This record gives sequence, C-alpha cells and structure tokens, in this order.
Amino acid sequence: MSAEPRMVEVRRKVLKQNDILAGELRQRFHRAGVCVVSLVSSPGSGKTAFLEKTLSLMRPTHRVAALVGDLATENDADRLRRSQAPVRQIVTGTVCHLEAEMVRKALEGWNLEELDFLFIENVGNLVCPSSYDLGEELRLVLLSVTEGEDKPLKYPTIFNTADVAVITKIDLAAAVEFDWTAALANIQAVRPGMTVLQVSAKTGEGLDRWQRLLESRRTLSA
Amino acid sequence: MSAEPRMVEVRRKVLKQNDILAGELRQRFHRAGVCVVSLVSSPGSGKTAFLEKTLSLMRPTHRVAALVGDLATENDADRLRRSQAPVRQIVTGTVCHLEAEMVRKALEGWNLEELDFLFIENVGNLVCPSSYDLGEELRLVLLSVTEGEDKPLKYPTIFNTADVAVITKIDLAAAVEFDWTAALANIQAVRPGMTVLQVSAKTGEGLDRWQRLLESRRTLSA
Repeated sequence: MSAEPRMVEVRRKVLKQNDILAGELRQRFHRAGVCVVSLVSSPGSGKTAFLEKTLSLMRPTHRVAALVGDLATENDADRLRRSQAPVRQIVTGTVCHLEAEMVRKALEGWNLEELDFLFIENVGNLVCPSSYDLGEELRLVLLSVTEGEDKPLKYPTIFNTADVAVITKIDLAAAVEFDWTAALANIQAVRPGMTVLQVSAKTGEGLDRWQRLLESRRTLSA
Repeated sequence: MSAEPRMVEVRRKVLKQNDILAGELRQRFHRAGVCVVSLVSSPGSGKTAFLEKTLSLMRPTHRVAALVGDLATENDADRLRRSQAPVRQIVTGTVCHLEAEMVRKALEGWNLEELDFLFIENVGNLVCPSSYDLGEELRLVLLSVTEGEDKPLKYPTIFNTADVAVITKIDLAAAVEFDWTAALANIQAVRPGMTVLQVSAKTGEGLDRWQRLLESRRTLSA
C-alpha cells in the first residue's frame, strides 16, 4: 500500500519518542528506589490473577502498587484493589498497548519513594506491547498452559524483549495435556537462558519461587 | 506525543486503502461463489484446532481451503494441511494483524471458482485485527473458556466487528469454573443479538451446529 512507508517512518518517530520518555521514567524509578515490573501476555493468560496473588503475598512486607491497562472497563483495577494495594486503571480506548506517556500520566500525584514495587499490567496482546519500553526493570511474559506450547516460536519478539517467562494455570496442565518438554525447549530456542517460572494462581504452586525472585531484585536495586 | 496526530492521519489513509482493497476482494469472492469466513481471537484460543476440525468435517462434501496468518513459523499451516485441504501460510513478520493486501497476494494462482469455502485465520490478537476488513463474508471471534468471561467487555471492538462468537474449549468449562451466564450476558451487552456457538474441538461437541450454520451460509451465497 502506498501509505505504508510513510506510516513506518512516522511509527519509528513515535517509538523513538517513547524510548526517550521510558528512559526518563527508568531514571526516576531508579532514583526513587522502586523496582518496576511489567507483565505482558495474551488476553486471558492470567495476568490479573497472578498480579492479585503477588500483591497479596508482598503487601505484608513491602510497599506495593499497580497500574493496569485495558482498552475498556475498570474490571481489573477493581479485582486488584481487593489486595488493598493502591491501584490505578489506564483505559487505552483503541490503543492496543501501553506507552511510557500513559504510565507517566497515571503516576501523577503518586510519591514513588513510598513504594518498593510497582507492577504494570499491560493490555492483553502478545504482539504490540513488545515495541514499547515502559521504563520497567523487569518484564514478564506470561503464557498459560491452555494456550499451547508453540507461542514462543509464533510470537518471538515478545519473548525476546522479556526477562522472565511465567507459565500460568499449571493446575490445568494435565487436563490440556501440556507438553512441558516442548514448551521449555521453545522458550529456550527463542531466548536461550531465559528464567522460567511455573505457577498456579489458583493453587498457589510456584509463587514462593516468584516471591524469592522479587525479593532478590529488591535487594539488588536497593 | 507530538508525532501522534500525524500517525493517526497516516493510519487512517492506510485503513482507507485497506477498505478499498477489501471491497474489491469481497466482489471477487462473491463472483466466484466462494463463502469466505475469517477467524480472530487471542493467541491460544483454539483457532487452529477449530479450523482443523472444520476443514476435516466439510471436506467430504465441500471444496474448502484456508489461509493462516502468523508473525512467524509455518506451524499452523502444517497442522491444517493434515486435513488434506489446500492451505497457505501468511507470515506477517512484525505486523500484528492480516491486511487485505496480504490476502490478495496469498491467493495468487488459486482459482477461487473451484472453492466453496475459504477460511482465513488471523494473527492471534484481540485488538488490531478488528480494524482491517479482509473482504470476508463472516467474521468469527473465538473466546476460550480458560480466558475468562469478561473479554467481550474488555475488547468490545473486536466483538462489535464480528458476526458470530464461538466459545471454545468447553470441555474445560467445569475445570475453570466458567460462568456461562456472565459470559453470554457480556457478549449480548456488547453486541445484542450476536449468534453464539459453544464448541470443543477436542470432543467435537457443538461442531454439528457450526456445520449447519456454514451450510446455510453456502445456500444463501450460492
């Protein structure tokens, strides 16, 4: 299509602008001593359930807060608020990913120095969020056992831009005949050496390792 | 961001260009007497499993073929070819949705008059494909029971641009405590009167109704 090259060029500028802003955010987070963790995945992979558990687990010993992105509704923020942590919803309208500017705006009025961990749940999308740096320290890509083992091969960019892969809903692994060997091999094929967590927000399995990983990060950044 | 308004404007032109091309495809499909059905959903909702079953069910009595879009790999095409139907993979690279031009190119060399049904499986993405008309007659949005009941509320545009909602993996509904009443109410809230199918590609449940729906479409368009 004739408009394509121009679109690509404009898109590049927007991305560059986002990178500048994300860099500024990263410096702010670092200065404030807050560890920022973002979560990306398909819709329905269990980001909100995982984050709800994480907030509840961490809240007794750490100061935690969350931002959550969706095209529409405040549903996820409402769910996360049950953990008693401060939560803000970012409603993106038709935008299929979060951008650094949305994060900056959502943080207005919050004193970052009063936080140990800030979690940012992206819009459910395994493609577009990969291009947008949010200034986070750690990016998690979630993959539920019900989605199949080949997602890393089919969506390599999002796995390449993430730091940790979290396999969710492992309580359903047997019911869906999840092939662990294939899944783990596919992750390593796309991103050799990637840390992989295996969790069930329903049964709590695997959350202890996740908690230890978070705490070690906090020790590093403090 | 300063580049945003220009990006929106260029994006509008690309979309308009896509609409013109999709209109031409629609006329071609109509003249050839082929019923074109597209499938959109999150990654891992079961589009390929559903389509594989559909091709196998329809092939004995109808001439069927498929195009399948992914960012990377020929995995889905390989799976669909087990049905013996002609299948072509569209590898989109970093593009998060199919466009009419990709469909046009992928169809080169195929005689559409030799087909009764052409299925187009979009890239797994519940956001961006909603903006791109592919010239299809029927657009299906798939939603698996493992994704949760609130997807229609959180991704309203994709439900609004689709004609039929297909709830997949219903064999897992009890295991994930799927709330049927809420799910169906959410679909109707976003798109009143929408036809909803409930299927399991694993057990075959619900596929008979889907087959009848397809056959009635064919009778209408023939």
